[in-house]
Amino acid sequence: MDLHILDHRLRVTSISKNGLVHFTHPLIKLIFLRNRTGCKFFSLTETPENYTVVLDEEGFKELQPSEHLQVEGSIWLPLNVVANGNVSSSSQAVGVTKIAKSVIAPLAEQHVSVFMLSTYQTDFILVREKDLAVVVSTLEEEFHIFREVAGESVPLCRQDAHNGLHKNGKEAILPTVHPVLIPQNHFCVMSLDPDTLPSIATTLIDVLFYSNSPKDDAASTPGQELDCVKFFSFSLIDGYISLVMDTEAQRQFPADLLFTSSSGELWRMVRIGGQPLGFDECGIVAQISQPLADSDISAYYISTFSFDHALVPEEDIARVTEMLHHQRKDAAAS
Amino acid sequence: MDLHILDHRLRVTSISKNGLVHFTHPLIKLIFLRNRTGCKFFSLTETPENYTVVLDEEGFKELQPSEHLQVEGSIWLPLNVVANGNVSSSSQAVGVTKIAKSVIAPLAEQHVSVFMLSTYQTDFILVREKDLAVVVSTLEEEFHIFREVAGESVPLCRQDAHNGLHKNGKEAILPTVHPVLIPQNHFCVMSLDPDTLPSIATTLIDVLFYSNSPKDDAASTPGQELDCVKFFSFSLIDGYISLVMDTEAQRQFPADLLFTSSSGELWRMVRIGGQPLGFDECGIVAQISQPLADSDISAYYISTFSFDHALVPEEDIARVTEMLHHQRKDAAAS
Repeated sequence: MDLHILDHRLRVTSISKNGLVHFTHPLIKLIFLRNRTGCKFFSLTETPENYTVVLDEEGFKELQPSEHLQVEGSIWLPLNVVANGNVSSSSQAVGVTKIAKSVIAPLAEQHVSVFMLSTYQTDFILVREKDLAVVVSTLEEEFHIFREVAGESVPLCRQDAHNGLHKNGKEAILPTVHPVLIPQNHFCVMSLDPDTLPSIATTLIDVLFYSNSPKDDAASTPGQELDCVKFFSFSLIDGYISLVMDTEAQRQFPADLLFTSSSGELWRMVRIGGQPLGFDECGIVAQISQPLADSDISAYYISTFSFDHALVPEEDIARVTEMLHHQRKDAAAS
Repeated sequence: MDLHILDHRLRVTSISKNGLVHFTHPLIKLIFLRNRTGCKFFSLTETPENYTVVLDEEGFKELQPSEHLQVEGSIWLPLNVVANGNVSSSSQAVGVTKIAKSVIAPLAEQHVSVFMLSTYQTDFILVREKDLAVVVSTLEEEFHIFREVAGESVPLCRQDAHNGLHKNGKEAILPTVHPVLIPQNHFCVMSLDPDTLPSIATTLIDVLFYSNSPKDDAASTPGQELDCVKFFSFSLIDGYISLVMDTEAQRQFPADLLFTSSSGELWRMVRIGGQPLGFDECGIVAQISQPLADSDISAYYISTFSFDHALVPEEDIARVTEMLHHQRKDAAAS
């Protein structure tokens, strides 16, 4: 397998719910007017807490400093695992499950924080630039590692990465087992031809920027909402669009433009963290991706500023729930 | 002819050029998400100085007070002249020319300030609510006057309007003849099926909100720009859309969606006012619409926060220029 260190230097930021109005101008530019920015990596995820915006330095220039904007201090680099054709994998699972044992677990053992961003197309593993040497030395036995530079994939010389390397300590630490929340909504992971993005512009703008204002025709059932969690993710990365939304949001879009890998495929969410997780704890992704990999259950995984979110197939949610229940019991017992 | 006092109570506001980013959220809502606001009268006009926003009280609620927002203190009511079928008019001219002698001139004589807003569909004559009694008594000989209330046209009882009426003095005053500017750009006055508004959303957003940021592919000729004046007007009034833009902006829109009354019809602009005009001077519209009416030259007329703008047919611009030249000479001689 190949591991690519992509040519994007990313910032991880958060816009407060009340602050969104102040960022409508730059965000609409980043989403719809690609030619007006040099941004090539953009992701916006709404959760009940805030809006997580991950974007490259060109995109980051568009965001003016504000009390409504929190910026994680590091530069993050996206990694991408590419099956190079001659690998026979016994797993049919997709998403983060595929890389749980080869990438997520080893990095967790090395105390490397990761920020995951699954999309319709692929799974990005974001690591801090300062951790790159550790990442490379940890993964170079399993992977051919390439660094993308100006569109070219350059094999990484071991020396490059090892300069200044000091491996993190390897003492076994017992990771915290975070509480999880399993909301009732059903999610879809979809894509869209970038050329048809203008066709859904007003709907997307409505959902992203105005969904919290009262609708004239709103007929919401308050009891139902308590069990559902607001979650909407849009990403535009290297020209590819990915959308994650629940079925309620999906109904607002024209049915003929968005596509999903197999029609009607629905996902349930496991939100990880009772309290905001922060960025320094390691092993959070591993905590959930390991048991999923053991059971060969597909999962998308989207980290946000406050919480992590795994999406698992609807038909597997009972197994996953039980699995997580046992994990918590074991942790409490130890 | 009938004169309708429409059922909208309007505010006339101005957003500074730098302030537009702070108003992107409410303006996009007002333009594209009609169902989310109760606004039924909305007009946005970009000029080199600022953005003039005229909107009803429901729409005005969407605009947060800000150092970037100027609000004219009055409530304005839109009047609309409706030819009721049995009138034989010798004039083929359209726009403000048609109402120059019957409405504009008499109101100017009564020292009533008017704010004109021509659209593709019709010409709105905005008058201050406090001037309504004078307006009615001035125009009731020429027109059947109706007040629209909740979608119904109710004939105005003379008594209603005359209560508290004190006609403004009628002493002849010599109006200031304002300098005019005739830029080189050619304008189109267009409309659009409201159902297809989403199809041009990203282009319209680009033109309205991002046209001042540098384009990657900009190949502008600086000398040419000096002679052109930025002017773009969008209005959405009672479900009807009107767009006024120059041919450069028009080229950015798909050719098949916008329509104009006769294809290829182009208009030249006469901008009135060397200094911002303010709202209290009367007779500015009359100054230009009278000679146009005398010569039976069609004209759209759009007032903004700082200046007034007449649009006349391309083929008549030489006559209009000469006419205005004489007007200034006469004024200087008197």
